[in-house]
Amino acid sequence: MHSPDLVLYTDSSPNGFKITIALEEMGLAYTLRHVQIDHDEHRHPDFLALNPHGRIPVLVDRGAGITLFESAAILLYLAQKSGQLLPPAGPAHWAAITWLMFHSSSVGPLLGQRVHFELFDDSANATAIQRYRQLTEAAFATLDQQLAANPWLAGQAYSIADIATFGWMHIARVIAFDFSQYRHLSAWYERVNLRPAVQRGIRLPAPATGP
Amino acid sequence: MHSPDLVLYTDSSPNGFKITIALEEMGLAYTLRHVQIDHDEHRHPDFLALNPHGRIPVLVDRGAGITLFESAAILLYLAQKSGQLLPPAGPAHWAAITWLMFHSSSVGPLLGQRVHFELFDDSANATAIQRYRQLTEAAFATLDQQLAANPWLAGQAYSIADIATFGWMHIARVIAFDFSQYRHLSAWYERVNLRPAVQRGIRLPAPATGP
Repeated sequence: MHSPDLVLYTDSSPNGFKITIALEEMGLAYTLRHVQIDHDEHRHPDFLALNPHGRIPVLVDRGAGITLFESAAILLYLAQKSGQLLPPAGPAHWAAITWLMFHSSSVGPLLGQRVHFELFDDSANATAIQRYRQLTEAAFATLDQQLAANPWLAGQAYSIADIATFGWMHIARVIAFDFSQYRHLSAWYERVNLRPAVQRGIRLPAPATGP
Repeated sequence: MHSPDLVLYTDSSPNGFKITIALEEMGLAYTLRHVQIDHDEHRHPDFLALNPHGRIPVLVDRGAGITLFESAAILLYLAQKSGQLLPPAGPAHWAAITWLMFHSSSVGPLLGQRVHFELFDDSANATAIQRYRQLTEAAFATLDQQLAANPWLAGQAYSIADIATFGWMHIARVIAFDFSQYRHLSAWYERVNLRPAVQRGIRLPAPATGP
């Protein structure tokens, strides 16, 4: 059988799940390469040649001669390649881009810092824990407000903005960061989570576990 | 005189300078609205109606009926509108998107956290200061490596990826975060800083000052 042009280098992580979910949603053929961060495979020279910053996910499109890192860049690429999950133009297009960027610059990085200080840092850094709890709660409140008025983050259509945000909210759920008080955000989480492609995506290359 | 379609709501800040620089580079007509964060104007209901998360910059394109927040979303919009500073397709296009996203998810958020703990936090949080120094240095090293091999972040052409990254590196310079050991990054900073449009952009709505 012809080997797919798309090769995804990933691990079981919030940023990785964004891309496995998107590929499953779009029905694109791809080869999955498991980069085991626990085994320091992200520091291997072959991987650093793909992403000098040493982070998953990385997508290679061998047919197009394109190598991409950064999950939001990969989502934009896959949306353009497939013609799916991103309205092609107009206000709906730019709403999806805006909420994708809100995820990339705020929701994702802030949850990442909260995970670090609550789960992985030995110093019991109360100031930092408090800071990132407050900042993630403020981001949750913004998402909740948007989802009170719209079924999906960009409005009427499920998009790559939902997929990106779900990647991190799924980890928040797995590690029991409680966001149940944000009922529109919680209901949206359940709607996304019910999608068959999402259920496939969050098990690739393996399901997430707690710390 | 006809009032421009584009209205930029901004303050003197790393994320704000990205957009004033881009508008000046592209030669687009716009109206500047100064949102004075020091006076809590970003919490005013009129501003929260534009961006529910209460952050500058916000761009309104009255002709197109589009309101955008998140600096990277605004940069993508202006590049498409003007046909400038983003290669239209192919590997060069996706390189610019990748480095723009690397800025949005890593360089900008990490410098933001470092600024907070080094300059604004009263708790002298050595663990957090150390963390964000290390993480920003790692990001600087990645930028430096890319700029050792390419005159601009996305390769041969100056792009919105350079503008986004300059916005934060300019603040790093203003507040004396030393990145002189990264000589390719430092030389790139000087190249960007010499551009007349950049010099105009970093003075709008007012020059940055230290904390």
